Parts: sequence; structure tokens; C-alpha cells
Amino acid sequence: MKPRVQFPLRIRDLEFGGGKPLFCIPIVPRDIPDLVVQAETARALNPELIEWRADFFSNPSASSLVGAATLLRNIAPEQALIFTLRAKSEGGAQELPQSDRRILIEAVLRSSMVDIVDLELANDNDFLHALMKTAQTCDMPVILAFHDFDRTLENEELLAKIESMRSQGANIAKIAVMPRTPEDVLRLLQVTACARRLYPNLPLITMSMGALGSITRVAGFLFGSDMSFALGKSGSAPGQIPMEDARKMVELLLRYSN
Amino acid sequence: MKPRVQFPLRIRDLEFGGGKPLFCIPIVPRDIPDLVVQAETARALNPELIEWRADFFSNPSASSLVGAATLLRNIAPEQALIFTLRAKSEGGAQELPQSDRRILIEAVLRSSMVDIVDLELANDNDFLHALMKTAQTCDMPVILAFHDFDRTLENEELLAKIESMRSQGANIAKIAVMPRTPEDVLRLLQVTACARRLYPNLPLITMSMGALGSITRVAGFLFGSDMSFALGKSGSAPGQIPMEDARKMVELLLRYSN
Repeated sequence: MKPRVQFPLRIRDLEFGGGKPLFCIPIVPRDIPDLVVQAETARALNPELIEWRADFFSNPSASSLVGAATLLRNIAPEQALIFTLRAKSEGGAQELPQSDRRILIEAVLRSSMVDIVDLELANDNDFLHALMKTAQTCDMPVILAFHDFDRTLENEELLAKIESMRSQGANIAKIAVMPRTPEDVLRLLQVTACARRLYPNLPLITMSMGALGSITRVAGFLFGSDMSFALGKSGSAPGQIPMEDARKMVELLLRYSN
Repeated sequence: MKPRVQFPLRIRDLEFGGGKPLFCIPIVPRDIPDLVVQAETARALNPELIEWRADFFSNPSASSLVGAATLLRNIAPEQALIFTLRAKSEGGAQELPQSDRRILIEAVLRSSMVDIVDLELANDNDFLHALMKTAQTCDMPVILAFHDFDRTLENEELLAKIESMRSQGANIAKIAVMPRTPEDVLRLLQVTACARRLYPNLPLITMSMGALGSITRVAGFLFGSDMSFALGKSGSAPGQIPMEDARKMVELLLRYSN
């Protein structure tokens, strides 16, 4: 599948790869009342994006998710919305058969209530290809993501993941890995700088997780990452920094790095 | 020459290598009135250390430098004072014959008005050995320093510089290099993390200079650097960040990294 050639990638009022650091607050609601609280908390912090981790939603059905997406769209009309329904094996919150996941994701994409869909690279090819085709039909950019909550693969392996995302038609490539040493944290930033040079037109979201990696959530922008996850009410991965502190740090880092 | 075995290295109330990030404001006065202004500005910002770059002093004599050191001691009684008289070839502000430099440095060391002396590793052996002996006699810790205002040597070469500093009896090793790429910045941090592991009892001061490297002036602490230079009134090297912003950033980085 061909990626869009447009660069920077424009999504609503945002530019992915345009130089301005983008912040995304993840929300992990279990039901509608929870979604209202978390979405309002997130919106009040004024992030550029909100990621809805729909795998935390209890008993998800196509209609309940489309209803929730519509509500989220109304609560946060100015934020770009990332829709993610991660499988349990990929770090998701609940076990859902692949066929159900496909139906749920397609329903939300077709509703046009979200702006970006996040899909795990580890999904099988048919599943991934079908959903990417739906996203293309809906003119919706796709994040292909690689997560590793245990370790940080070698630089070459991580770069191969990004190349695989690109060749499969990702509009945005995402890498989130766990460091075991300070050197692992630096390697994730090296991979970012290298990918930025190899693929100048591919927006990137990269991070080294956990407390050890938290520096990458603010310094990643200096090395080529375009977006960072920050904390609203509840985080979705270890090492996320509260929104206001993250913005303050990034603002200062960018001021002295240019 | 044997380095002190004491670790963390205690200098006045400070611990080098004790985990608390130390900030040093450099001052570059041309004469006594200038020194008064710069020292008072620096002290008001409450750094842990002040570095006096005495090579900026016009027509330095042993008595004028000892007089200036005494004045500085009185203006900043709570700061540890680093004394540095860099040769022109090492990035210093004026040409001074080596024999003059030796006399000037020895006079200031013997005055006991400063707490630490910074000497460039590139000095010839006899010169370095003589001054380190004087410092040892005065019970004054020595920083051995390597500067490169043009590039960032390979990791192995930088580690060899630190090993050379250690084997020559440095109490603190300092590496300041210029990056040409974002990867050079990351390599300096890798060298820092590696040296910290190789020499757990050797305090380190490392930085990647210029705007590109400014991240290292706040993130270096996470990877094993013990001290960072921040701006008072006038900087002494490119990329230094004003004291208050530097502290704020480090405080936030440390809060989320632990």
C-alpha cells in the first residue's frame, strides 16, 4: 500500500513532522461516564491530540464504540483523535477475538468520528491489510506501531521495524520500547535520529518507556520524534509525564537547542 | 600520582558524585571591577560552584590574581571556587608563556583562596606533573580537562582521554566537545554512561557544546555527569543555559526519571 506523499502530514489543524512538538493525552475509559470525565480532563489540558484506548472499554460493541467516539468528538472538538483497540497480546487491556476487533475497528473508522487509527505491526498480514484498506477508503491516516514492554532491540532491528511500517504503508511510524540501561535510552534516540534521516517524509513517534526512559518523552523532539504522550488523569504506559510539566520542559529544551 | 580514594569527593559542603546535580557558573572578568559585578551576579543565582576563568584577566600577575582570588572568596563565601587559567591553544582568552602560567597558577593554589584547579590534559607532562604536585601539597582537587571546539572524537578515543586523566591522578575528569550531528550529542552521553560504569569512583563533568548539545547540560546528570555549567552574566562556552532555567529543567527531569 502506498503511503500518502503529503509531508508534513496534515491532520485537522495539525502538522505531523512540521517541527512543532505535538502532545497526545491517552484516555483509558471503562464506560461512558468514565469517558466523559477522562476526556474533559484531557481536553482541559489542551493537548494537540487525544488517544482513545478503546481496549479498556467494557463489553465493546460496534454501536457502543461508535456512540462513545461521537461523544468524545463532541467533548474534544479541537483535538485530533487517535483510535486504538489494542489486542491483549500487544499490551491491550482485554482479550478480544481478532474477528471482533476487526468489526469494531472498522465500525469506528467508518463513523469518521476519529482522525487517526493506531494498528500494531505485529498483527497478521490479512488483518492489517484489510484494516489499512478501510482506513485508506475513509481517508484516515494510519499509525503502525511496535511495542516492547520488556527490552530495547538492537538499533538495526528497530530500524527494520520502521522500514517494515513504511513499506506497508504507514503514514506514521511508532516505536515504544523498554530500556534496561541508560545506554538503551540513548539507543532509542539514535534510532530516532537515524530514521529521521533515512525517511525524512515519514512522521515518527518514538519513546523509551519507564522512569529510565522518561527523558525521551521530552527530548525525543530534538532527535526527530514528532509526538509525545503525556499524562492526563490516567496514563497508558509507564514513564508518561504530566502534560504541563512535559510542555514546560520541551519549551525550554527547544529554546536553547535552536 | 594517586587519586584520592574518597568518594563521593567532598569539597567544602559539596559532594561530587553524590547524586545531587551541581551547577557551576563561570565568570570571565577582565579586571577587578568586572570581577565584582560578575561574581555578585553569579552568587545571587546561588550555584554550588563558581569557575573563575582567570585567562580573561588583563595583565595578570601573581599578586593581582591572588588579590582577585581573595576578593572572589569574600564575595562568594558559600560557593566552591574553581580556578582555571587556560592557555590560548586550549581555548584560553590570551597568550601567556607556559612558565608564566605555571607561576600564576602556583601562586593562586598556594593562596588557598580557591577550592579546585582545572588543568588541561593537553599540557606537557612536566608542566602538568609539577602543578598536580603543588595541588596535592595544597590538598586541592584537580580537574583534568579535555576540550574540542571542533568535533566529537569517537567514543573509544574519548574514553581513552578519561582513562588518561584517571591514570594521571585527576580527582575529577572533564570532557567538553562540539557535536556536528544529533548522533554526536548522543555519543557524548554514551561515553558518560560508559565512563560512569568503568570508573564508579571518578567524578565526571561532561558536555556536548553549542545549541545542538545543550540538552547534555541538563540531561547529563541522568547519565553520570556530576556538574553542569550554567549562565550567569556572561557564558564561557557555547550552549550554556541560564542558571534558573537549567535548574528548573534538571529538577523536572530528575523528578520523572526516578
